[in-house]
Amino acid sequence: MKYAIIAIGDELLAGQVTDTNSGTISRMLQPAGWELHSVRVVSDSPEHILRAISEAFAETDAVITTGGLGPTKDDLTKQTLCRYFGGELREDPSVKANVERVVSARGLKLNALTAAQAMVPTSCSVIQNLVGTAPIMWFERDGKVLVAMPGVPFETEQMMRRSVMARLIDRFPSTEFIERRVVMVCGMSESAIAGMIAPWEDSLPQHAHLAYLPKPGVVRLRIDCHHHDKDFLTGEATRLHAELARLIPADHLLAVADLTPEEILLNELRQRGLSFASAESCTGGSIARRITAIPGSSSAFKGSVVAYANEVKSAVLGVNAEDIAAHGAVSQTVVEQMAAGARDRLGADIAVATSGIAGPGGGSDDKPVGTVWIATATPEGVHSCMHHFPGSRDRVIDRAATTTILSAIESLRRL
Amino acid sequence: MKYAIIAIGDELLAGQVTDTNSGTISRMLQPAGWELHSVRVVSDSPEHILRAISEAFAETDAVITTGGLGPTKDDLTKQTLCRYFGGELREDPSVKANVERVVSARGLKLNALTAAQAMVPTSCSVIQNLVGTAPIMWFERDGKVLVAMPGVPFETEQMMRRSVMARLIDRFPSTEFIERRVVMVCGMSESAIAGMIAPWEDSLPQHAHLAYLPKPGVVRLRIDCHHHDKDFLTGEATRLHAELARLIPADHLLAVADLTPEEILLNELRQRGLSFASAESCTGGSIARRITAIPGSSSAFKGSVVAYANEVKSAVLGVNAEDIAAHGAVSQTVVEQMAAGARDRLGADIAVATSGIAGPGGGSDDKPVGTVWIATATPEGVHSCMHHFPGSRDRVIDRAATTTILSAIESLRRL
Repeated sequence: MKYAIIAIGDELLAGQVTDTNSGTISRMLQPAGWELHSVRVVSDSPEHILRAISEAFAETDAVITTGGLGPTKDDLTKQTLCRYFGGELREDPSVKANVERVVSARGLKLNALTAAQAMVPTSCSVIQNLVGTAPIMWFERDGKVLVAMPGVPFETEQMMRRSVMARLIDRFPSTEFIERRVVMVCGMSESAIAGMIAPWEDSLPQHAHLAYLPKPGVVRLRIDCHHHDKDFLTGEATRLHAELARLIPADHLLAVADLTPEEILLNELRQRGLSFASAESCTGGSIARRITAIPGSSSAFKGSVVAYANEVKSAVLGVNAEDIAAHGAVSQTVVEQMAAGARDRLGADIAVATSGIAGPGGGSDDKPVGTVWIATATPEGVHSCMHHFPGSRDRVIDRAATTTILSAIESLRRL
Repeated sequence: MKYAIIAIGDELLAGQVTDTNSGTISRMLQPAGWELHSVRVVSDSPEHILRAISEAFAETDAVITTGGLGPTKDDLTKQTLCRYFGGELREDPSVKANVERVVSARGLKLNALTAAQAMVPTSCSVIQNLVGTAPIMWFERDGKVLVAMPGVPFETEQMMRRSVMARLIDRFPSTEFIERRVVMVCGMSESAIAGMIAPWEDSLPQHAHLAYLPKPGVVRLRIDCHHHDKDFLTGEATRLHAELARLIPADHLLAVADLTPEEILLNELRQRGLSFASAESCTGGSIARRITAIPGSSSAFKGSVVAYANEVKSAVLGVNAEDIAAHGAVSQTVVEQMAAGARDRLGADIAVATSGIAGPGGGSDDKPVGTVWIATATPEGVHSCMHHFPGSRDRVIDRAATTTILSAIESLRRL
């Protein structure tokens, strides 16, 4: 089943908010064979919303809108849908009761604006929003369906999961299914991989397609298989996945599933029963944040010392202050002492450390912006390496964090 | 000037990558009076790309595409644009020289696939990509312009800044300008604010528009002013901005500019010449990461101890192990000792601490998932408060980090 999404909101077009709802919805509906055909991002203007609906219905029979359902004057989706599908706005007692429940659960009082959330077009059937005040509206005409979801990512994700997804799948049963498999490669460029696997890629059957998703340090190879026969599809996806994994040299094969580097690290730590810690200067907590974003990470992660000031490097991690004075904080000896200090003081089997110049200021001829020392301390000793990462501050921090996590995985696999 | 963006890539529709280029481009072009009219996200299919181009050109004379310019077989934007605008793909020696330069600067060798990046449609004029291998292509026909940019966010951002932005503004000089101003409000709901400022909002002139952008803990109010007279516009934006700020009670007025809570915190620390540190359990490094993402944060930020394991809370922050055993890590006494310990051991004037249950596991009847203790230690003592945040792990961590930063700002303002 193909469908389209319309994301509504001036703030999306102004670049003040990024649309993440489309990706969330796509990932949720994909296993049921639903393929997202297009996304349109439009302003809170009735004219633009109407045009997007016409364009989307020209492509597909199912359209999901997100956003524009707030209680304030700038949100016009509900009025516009009422205009498109007909009927009039009328207060729905069941919605009113739900809004009162949600507002009181937040410890707030119902005011006139929020109460107006209970006004819904007579042309829709309502799906109660269990986690917010904007009702979800299901419109149907000439065999085509439009579902209006809230713009708040948490509400859309929850309500897709709790009811909307099941209703959509029930309304449009799939005739073709999709399976996606991922192989993750590190230490090779996109074009080097493509050159290496060209004969295999050229021989892929019609129902399979390969995509390259490069990120700094890692290339994800995604195989998409489409077929109406679910068993055949799974067989094909499994076969092609295994074939592709065999084509990648072992030391470049990072994973055979779509995982983040930190998920891979955590899995390998758990398999070996080892614990992990970090000492972060230029990465400023990014490594810790990425690891602790994973549920259950506390089983292997001890903690991190974000040692931004030199005094903290000495006082908390035990780095020799004279070495900092003599070699600078961005130096091999300091980063190695940081890793060893983190391993020792946080009581971990493996520790990593970063020290570098993320920019935009602080660079010199000797150590330009982007210079980052990365160290790994294991029971077998401390290793370190200097890197030069291009780009902006964000990009340097991000690449340094990824590279550090990849180097920890490499060290672990060598133990 | 109105324009449209087409973001091309199966990975965007599959929810594997989020389109951030549109927001970047929109923020960059907005001060020149360029208003993003719509974004279409489409797959790497020639048919879908062509349809999106037709739809976009029906709305506007300027279209920017991003993505689909990689060297591998799944990227088809260049071929499709050649079909739409005519001409044929031919090797461009200046592009070849640029690709060789970029590849060799990365310490790599040119292979056949990357070399093919130098094939460009004869119907376009090339803008050399100084930071990547995919050439930027400028097409023009019947007074309409299409610029094809790379999908890599860093490349698009850099090349917009270095040349594409200036060429677009030069090609379509603006007749109407836009100014946006933001007032940030904390501790009030969207609808409570709307009720309070209704008379003012109702009296806004035609050329001004108010939007509400709620985020957990903070509501951003954005005034958009449009006018052809630049001086009048600035006057109006300044006047309305000041009026709105005066309508917000002082203790709810977080800022009169579009800043993140961490930017506000850093500004206030610098104004007072004070230093900051954190001790993070459930937020896992998020507070440190947000602060260190800001250039120059090292002038006020000492560091953070991500004390995930209880032993780390005791060993590094000096929390009494008996108190952890008696009250649990998620308790008032532990979080207050963490804040005091961070202030003391990291040598900061102000320190914050978090300890909570981010979930999905680890909750109990007594301390359900979402329970977070937050403490602030200042020269005047330690304060703490317990919160219950709803939602998923990500959301609890995010809200806890925001709330902690907001409470640090509040403490600072009271000093």
